[in-house]
Amino acid sequence: MADTSSFLNKARLVDLLKRERLDAIVATLPENVTYSSGYWALSQWIRRGPQSYVLLPAADLDASCIIASTSLLDLLADQDIWVKNVRRYGYFQADRANAPLNALDRRQAELYDLPDDKGAIESLVAAVRAAGLAKGRLAVDELGLLPGHWERLRDELPEAELVPGAQLMRRIRAVKTEAEIDRLREAARVAERSIQAALRVAKAGATELDLARAFHAETVTGDAFPVLGCIGFGTRSAMPNVQPADVALEEGQVIRFDVGGRYHHYRADIARIAVLGEADARTRKYYGALSAGVQRVLEMVKPGVRTADLFNAAVETVRREGIPHYSRSHVGHGIGIDGYDLPDLTPGSDHVVEEGMVMCVETPYYEVGWCGLQREDTIVIRRDGPESFMTLSGDLMTVS
Amino acid sequence: MADTSSFLNKARLVDLLKRERLDAIVATLPENVTYSSGYWALSQWIRRGPQSYVLLPAADLDASCIIASTSLLDLLADQDIWVKNVRRYGYFQADRANAPLNALDRRQAELYDLPDDKGAIESLVAAVRAAGLAKGRLAVDELGLLPGHWERLRDELPEAELVPGAQLMRRIRAVKTEAEIDRLREAARVAERSIQAALRVAKAGATELDLARAFHAETVTGDAFPVLGCIGFGTRSAMPNVQPADVALEEGQVIRFDVGGRYHHYRADIARIAVLGEADARTRKYYGALSAGVQRVLEMVKPGVRTADLFNAAVETVRREGIPHYSRSHVGHGIGIDGYDLPDLTPGSDHVVEEGMVMCVETPYYEVGWCGLQREDTIVIRRDGPESFMTLSGDLMTVS
Repeated sequence: MADTSSFLNKARLVDLLKRERLDAIVATLPENVTYSSGYWALSQWIRRGPQSYVLLPAADLDASCIIASTSLLDLLADQDIWVKNVRRYGYFQADRANAPLNALDRRQAELYDLPDDKGAIESLVAAVRAAGLAKGRLAVDELGLLPGHWERLRDELPEAELVPGAQLMRRIRAVKTEAEIDRLREAARVAERSIQAALRVAKAGATELDLARAFHAETVTGDAFPVLGCIGFGTRSAMPNVQPADVALEEGQVIRFDVGGRYHHYRADIARIAVLGEADARTRKYYGALSAGVQRVLEMVKPGVRTADLFNAAVETVRREGIPHYSRSHVGHGIGIDGYDLPDLTPGSDHVVEEGMVMCVETPYYEVGWCGLQREDTIVIRRDGPESFMTLSGDLMTVS
Repeated sequence: MADTSSFLNKARLVDLLKRERLDAIVATLPENVTYSSGYWALSQWIRRGPQSYVLLPAADLDASCIIASTSLLDLLADQDIWVKNVRRYGYFQADRANAPLNALDRRQAELYDLPDDKGAIESLVAAVRAAGLAKGRLAVDELGLLPGHWERLRDELPEAELVPGAQLMRRIRAVKTEAEIDRLREAARVAERSIQAALRVAKAGATELDLARAFHAETVTGDAFPVLGCIGFGTRSAMPNVQPADVALEEGQVIRFDVGGRYHHYRADIARIAVLGEADARTRKYYGALSAGVQRVLEMVKPGVRTADLFNAAVETVRREGIPHYSRSHVGHGIGIDGYDLPDLTPGSDHVVEEGMVMCVETPYYEVGWCGLQREDTIVIRRDGPESFMTLSGDLMTVS
């Protein structure tokens, strides 16, 4: 694994905290804990309940502190984490060999030897006090806490001013570092290769589940984890969230992929359309219009452009090019450690495109009783315009 | 997919609601929504934020109601869901073909035609009122709500009495239906086959990542999704949550698996140990003691036994059989749609084993600087004792 110190956009974090007159921010959602520190705390990612936090003081990021469950300290020792201060809480039994330890094991032993803060909130409160922030103005990512935690923080830090921090964390995450961009590019590549693997088994009589198995097998071979695997045939492709079923592919049917896993924490979300045999005229015309809408965004997008303008241009293009009644709530979204990062490509958005944003641009069309058509590309915004992560053509594909 | 109406233990739900003098319970966590209705609402499972609910009235389960985002109605149409009442909220554009619709598409069209309740909480409040429960005593699974939702429910249902329901949902889920048991058994089988697939690539020089790729590829081939994949060699196997790395296997090293995916919503969590070549005497002795601890639980466990007694028996057995200093916080836990269901096999637990519980029984031992050893079996409790889901021996395995 490469350097995870650079997941976090430190300059942007400090700048946004200062603009909001905040002394620190506390990450609590699994996405925000991993993003801000590099620490991936297994059980927090697979269930709701387990708590890990990162305290990030604006004036001195080197004083940042991770709050970890004792049962998850091993991952702290084994991962590439830039935050050096750790507090632990809770009982967990790990014995120790009566033998010389290697560096990894020494680090584990050190972490287990830390004093036990007993509970997650107690530990966070102690970290805030130790950082001299008990009277500070603190943003706390409210979405990862459990019911009652906010009130406990307020009671135990009576002189602090607490404000919700989840939206601010999303604003920080919106502009990616190069380490994040590298992962997002590879996540997209794995998704493309997985689509190709699925198309290799696509033939008359193959089922959605056959394609899904081939898709996910390629994903895990690429060291990514399955997350989004919408693969549908024919009229089923019109279901926006179609889940693969034991349904056989027939000549002339559309295959819609809206897919993407998680590669070293970072998400993919791309869409492509294939047809078994020859596409009919309406499918070609509609897909051409949708693809032109994406293409229009790719031509316009660069730093300083309003995302609402991108939305309007995409919808107008699709309407002009062949689907006069085309209507949508959005034509894309940011992507990162979460599948829906900022910015939003919506008509009411006041977001402005910035260099370093990574976004999915998409123009889906779902017609119940006919089919679903969609092109979704992922791009990163460079100084002069977009760099596409796509290596697969955005054209309608055919399989035989 | 088989009948999902029987995920939910309806008799137990009604019984526990009556005992707690509750008129209804509202499921909000993704696990509880899927468990109680069969409805798997994609985006709720992969991110924190999207809201789906199920209202379950004690007096008339047929009056249960699903509250769904309009963007996720397609899954409601395509899944096997026993709850017939649906309310929807939010804008989502889906067009409709000017052609005859099949049954699936007609159901989608019907759902899209439902009135828009605008927001998730508005929709839930309307469902409670429609069910005549506005003055009722209602348990609400507090863990799936977003900050502020509880207060809004309280304000909009001023005559209702609201109590937290997450713990009650866990108590309901603790005793499985046969439909759940079938899925849990298959989830365990997929995990066993995945261990075997990983062991087929285990040889000197193979890396943890090589084994992980083989493991997960088998998991997705079995229509399960990777969740838990702790696979570690040698001293790394002592990390409780070890994540596979680019580290090569050496002669005599332990390989520890603590693994399991999600099969049709239901989790697996099993552990096995293999050694490359010959295991040394200490490894054999310690593993034998740990395995004897699991075996002791399997001999004792049946309806009516206290889980605290199982804990004590397991720990005493391990100590007597070869690890005098053995210490643990638990020796197992329930498993179901969540990896940590009730009961808890802890010393302080007041849980009593019931027929139909499915549980993981485990005696892990982690020695930093040496290795980690663990046996974890999954069983279902039948009237006279356990039925094991395991087909792989619980003995120390060797690969060459």
